[in-house]
Amino acid sequence: MRNTFGNHITLTLFGESHGPEIGCVLDGLPPGLHVNEERIAAQLALRRPVGSISTARVEQDRFRIVSGVYQGRTTGTPLCILIPNTEARSEDYVNIKTTPRPGHADYTGYVKYRGFADPRGGGHFSGRLTAALAAAGAIALGALRSRGVSIGTHIARLAGIADRPFDHLGEDVARLGSLPFAVLDEAAGEKMRAAIEAAARDGDSVGGSLETAVLGLPAGLGEPWFDTVEGLLSHALFSIPAVKAVEFGDGFALAEMKGSQTNDPFRMENGRVITASNHNGGVNGGLTNGMPLLFRTAVKPTPSIGLPQQTVDLSTAENVELTLNGRHDPCIVHRARVVQDSLTALVLLDLLSGERL
Amino acid sequence: MRNTFGNHITLTLFGESHGPEIGCVLDGLPPGLHVNEERIAAQLALRRPVGSISTARVEQDRFRIVSGVYQGRTTGTPLCILIPNTEARSEDYVNIKTTPRPGHADYTGYVKYRGFADPRGGGHFSGRLTAALAAAGAIALGALRSRGVSIGTHIARLAGIADRPFDHLGEDVARLGSLPFAVLDEAAGEKMRAAIEAAARDGDSVGGSLETAVLGLPAGLGEPWFDTVEGLLSHALFSIPAVKAVEFGDGFALAEMKGSQTNDPFRMENGRVITASNHNGGVNGGLTNGMPLLFRTAVKPTPSIGLPQQTVDLSTAENVELTLNGRHDPCIVHRARVVQDSLTALVLLDLLSGERL
Amino acid sequence: MRNTFGNHITLTLFGESHGPEIGCVLDGLPPGLHVNEERIAAQLALRRPVGSISTARVEQDRFRIVSGVYQGRTTGTPLCILIPNTEARSEDYVNIKTTPRPGHADYTGYVKYRGFADPRGGGHFSGRLTAALAAAGAIALGALRSRGVSIGTHIARLAGIADRPFDHLGEDVARLGSLPFAVLDEAAGEKMRAAIEAAARDGDSVGGSLETAVLGLPAGLGEPWFDTVEGLLSHALFSIPAVKAVEFGDGFALAEMKGSQTNDPFRMENGRVITASNHNGGVNGGLTNGMPLLFRTAVKPTPSIGLPQQTVDLSTAENVELTLNGRHDPCIVHRARVVQDSLTALVLLDLLSGERL
Amino acid sequence: MRNTFGNHITLTLFGESHGPEIGCVLDGLPPGLHVNEERIAAQLALRRPVGSISTARVEQDRFRIVSGVYQGRTTGTPLCILIPNTEARSEDYVNIKTTPRPGHADYTGYVKYRGFADPRGGGHFSGRLTAALAAAGAIALGALRSRGVSIGTHIARLAGIADRPFDHLGEDVARLGSLPFAVLDEAAGEKMRAAIEAAARDGDSVGGSLETAVLGLPAGLGEPWFDTVEGLLSHALFSIPAVKAVEFGDGFALAEMKGSQTNDPFRMENGRVITASNHNGGVNGGLTNGMPLLFRTAVKPTPSIGLPQQTVDLSTAENVELTLNGRHDPCIVHRARVVQDSLTALVLLDLLSGERL
Repeated sequence: MRNTFGNHITLTLFGESHGPEIGCVLDGLPPGLHVNEERIAAQLALRRPVGSISTARVEQDRFRIVSGVYQGRTTGTPLCILIPNTEARSEDYVNIKTTPRPGHADYTGYVKYRGFADPRGGGHFSGRLTAALAAAGAIALGALRSRGVSIGTHIARLAGIADRPFDHLGEDVARLGSLPFAVLDEAAGEKMRAAIEAAARDGDSVGGSLETAVLGLPAGLGEPWFDTVEGLLSHALFSIPAVKAVEFGDGFALAEMKGSQTNDPFRMENGRVITASNHNGGVNGGLTNGMPLLFRTAVKPTPSIGLPQQTVDLSTAENVELTLNGRHDPCIVHRARVVQDSLTALVLLDLLSGERL
Repeated sequence: MRNTFGNHITLTLFGESHGPEIGCVLDGLPPGLHVNEERIAAQLALRRPVGSISTARVEQDRFRIVSGVYQGRTTGTPLCILIPNTEARSEDYVNIKTTPRPGHADYTGYVKYRGFADPRGGGHFSGRLTAALAAAGAIALGALRSRGVSIGTHIARLAGIADRPFDHLGEDVARLGSLPFAVLDEAAGEKMRAAIEAAARDGDSVGGSLETAVLGLPAGLGEPWFDTVEGLLSHALFSIPAVKAVEFGDGFALAEMKGSQTNDPFRMENGRVITASNHNGGVNGGLTNGMPLLFRTAVKPTPSIGLPQQTVDLSTAENVELTLNGRHDPCIVHRARVVQDSLTALVLLDLLSGERL
Repeated sequence: MRNTFGNHITLTLFGESHGPEIGCVLDGLPPGLHVNEERIAAQLALRRPVGSISTARVEQDRFRIVSGVYQGRTTGTPLCILIPNTEARSEDYVNIKTTPRPGHADYTGYVKYRGFADPRGGGHFSGRLTAALAAAGAIALGALRSRGVSIGTHIARLAGIADRPFDHLGEDVARLGSLPFAVLDEAAGEKMRAAIEAAARDGDSVGGSLETAVLGLPAGLGEPWFDTVEGLLSHALFSIPAVKAVEFGDGFALAEMKGSQTNDPFRMENGRVITASNHNGGVNGGLTNGMPLLFRTAVKPTPSIGLPQQTVDLSTAENVELTLNGRHDPCIVHRARVVQDSLTALVLLDLLSGERL
Repeated sequence: MRNTFGNHITLTLFGESHGPEIGCVLDGLPPGLHVNEERIAAQLALRRPVGSISTARVEQDRFRIVSGVYQGRTTGTPLCILIPNTEARSEDYVNIKTTPRPGHADYTGYVKYRGFADPRGGGHFSGRLTAALAAAGAIALGALRSRGVSIGTHIARLAGIADRPFDHLGEDVARLGSLPFAVLDEAAGEKMRAAIEAAARDGDSVGGSLETAVLGLPAGLGEPWFDTVEGLLSHALFSIPAVKAVEFGDGFALAEMKGSQTNDPFRMENGRVITASNHNGGVNGGLTNGMPLLFRTAVKPTPSIGLPQQTVDLSTAENVELTLNGRHDPCIVHRARVVQDSLTALVLLDLLSGERL
């Protein structure tokens, strides 16, 4: 199904970095949901580049909803969001069609689409398309909020600097949504931003990891085989440009422990089944168990860097050196956070929508 | 789509641990493919428990192919494989319906299926169903082999003991397929088996991580959004019971590096585009780049342990202590290897089948 | 998705006419549904050939449910039904692989599967597979009955002889389920059976049409585009071997009328919206309107006839004459009725399962 | 999958009759296909209302392709087409939200979307959306043409007046594409237009049937179960507003014939397998057999009529009389022809795209 995701709530993504508009179609939403355009604008603002730690291409993201909303509420029919591209400078990308940027999709896209893909700014592979994901995500986040589900993501690590872990989950998650640079420990955030600026000065880039907590999910979401909560979420999360790893609960650390340590004991608490610990990140056997859902992604350093790089010229089959002229993000971890929240919301809303009452 | 996976080649899985038979339907295979029943039997044998490091329940896995094969070749119509269960001892599981085992799907399955699921031996959630995956995987591995694609998985870590990394990829991958305990360094393998036996003596269990290499893939497989190679593979891999994390290439380590280090430079080699390093594990922008595909999963310690555990009685809503009587695997990392190979083969065959020539 | 149908309740069909077993996997059923094996057996009995008006191959259809049912109720996990083939006489079909039977799938299947399909008795294309559809349909019919939905199909026409139309819908539908030869006017049924016997004596075959009524559906089922009730039902109904046409409500007759005649006026009746007439067969704009759903299919004469026929020899590329030796149905309209009920039930249960409460 | 159709080439449709824009996303197209905007404009022009036999709402259909095309060719990534609505007069529809028009989707849409759907002009159910289908269809028709497949549809009957049947298939099909009122016998066309004008004068409407021929298809397209050519086409064709029946080959007439008449004999002709007759409309066992694909749809009279009608007021639960003020089509058969061509092209391109070479 290519550029469409979801079983009950489906998202179809379209557009190119330097085309006239990007957008998405969100189908399967229940009718009658309030669509808060200010919240969508706020989500897009959070994703937008900020000052010295981001690219200089700043789009205003003046989105339009052209279908599926009537008198401020969802109709239940497909909702299409369009976002114009206004700040593209295609002249910065003239040479990447035949001299692919290392670490980017230029070469693989060239092969897949036999040289016909729009190469400007990465075309359809561009992180620019995540603006449409963020807009759709804002709607999904709103729908989840009205069902008592909240999602928060912080920058767990960046350039080797660690944020403090979640400890007061409820408060932590509540705070994160509106932060432009989502850390729990602002002192760590300072150091992270300094590291980004330092990398930018060097013409280089840095990566990090993002940790998400989801509160308020019922137990029993997911399927035993294939459509596990972990499988569905990871499937979506690997669409965040630069994400190369996903772990749930204690993730790779679980591999080093004993079963007597990793089995989260069940207990009754106020007439409700809980687990006394949460090494499994709220998932047992691929299904939610009602505890906080916890996972982390690894975001590699942005592949667009200013330093000269070795590549090939596909038109001459020769090795060449490439120096990029475009406007680059020295780090996208803080911006990827918004996309992680958005995709998480879309996957969970899809799962909740598939539940029979 | 619940218990079905794949776009072009689809796998539908059915059965319960203590039901009469488990099985799967594999649809979309090209007609005319040789079906080698000995290779299927060999794959099932690799997955079967071995001696002191595994459960005492040993099924003979006398599989039958009841459709989709005629005169030793695939017909192109759905291929159904059935495997009888003969060694189930349901009396070992009488109490888990209402006293869920920590770390297992007993509680989440109870909620999802409102108490109607077959609780014996984990029912439909049981690792027993991976026998059907392994049988289907043997067919997919054969189909890939005939296209020049080979897959190898080794136990990268187990109970804190590390195998040596892949270094002679071609030879390493070729050797792994037939090993009952898949390590590259047999001395490390000895220590791992000793650690499993020690855990078994303690009534405890251990975990580890599995590393897979795939050779011979063309560039350009995957889709830019959602159906990335990483997204599709991780979606499937989280169906391996106990897998809690997936990372591609250098995975979480990439988060600590600089872009100038993680960007794999392109070079021409014998008229072919290669990358000089492979930090990205053979994937750029979600598509294969023609280099070896590399990834690792984290396998948590088996949740079935002999030690007493804390849980709840769902029928009385009280906290209780649970001691399991069944036959358990003190480690499933070595058995999960076969399932990882199988699911990887199914996902890649599906991707290759979707390509237009 | 090839041999799988349905969005929420999915059916996957497998097997060949002369293979060891045929069967299906039914996934997505709600947990806790009573599975009445007697009703399944009764549905299979209705589909079985009867006396002089059907083929002499009579299978006992000793089905087994090997998964998805525990203690007489659905578990919510995939339900697999297997039915052995015991009466196949493959020697009757030795020559059809290269001399395709006119009107059958022998030639098209040969091309599609490049000569690798199992040709015996039509292989995977055989009407034999509808036994598995009938078994799955019996479960779906039971699930609908418990929601107050009932389905009835009668032989509206056969060999030019007309049954009386539905007039007392409730009573008519209730009677039809258990009739081995489903007509509302038994005198018409006598004539139809005589026509079948006459065709059989001539080595020829006859066709007819089947009319279905569904009572008790809520308004609002279906989607405005593509997944209309009419689109989904017709998609499934064309899988009944020999069905070549589907019409809803007055169907082709609507094309000859005026809008003032075909628009069914809305009226209030006992606080409920009804339509005063039902030319549209219970569907407006692709969605159910709460009135009886009505449709008809055309079933062509069975292509297997005893008379000599002109065909080609694919191995020599020459025109040849073919005389079939197998056991044939001189008419399948009365047997197709069971399959029409079954597919209708599966499609409607799927639609109902997709509704949010 | 609601408003999405297709397995390999998928079409997602969005928009409302009186919203700012309607459109569609077409995904899965091969890269490098020429996109001829004039042909799209021509297809849209054919669908537009004409003079006295159509509605007075005439949209200019100034479409924009905002993604998936670069330098005049498809990129292989999703192609989004947008068409603005400029001529909507919403004041004509003020009362239909609570007093549903008989024969329309107003009532069923009201129930399905719980009163939240956009009621103006039928909202998402409106025939207006078929403009987006026609634009997508123009692209699919072009792709088929370049593969040697041609499609032609004529008005077989209208208000009881018959066009002459296809007799010189190749020439007939070639001529039909560019005709604004697609008949083979222009004298019959005259009478049909007079009948439409007469119905318009009476405030009434008329229906008809459309017959399609497809030439140049290879044998072997389709699947034996569920995704038969007939099943897929009918599924799509019932999305044409007002279509209530679909028949292939001789359709309902087959039900009255004998097997010896309906079995199309195979013959060799110039080294190619053909059938001597084509009662089965180019389909055997659900798969194309290489002969012309032939089918007919029944198009009911437009439900929007000027005469007073009986309906209910949903807000008061009372019976009321309704007189429509909007601009209506007294017949949509001639306009539906373009949509039938378009959907046929999309389904067949999808089937061809799924074939392995």
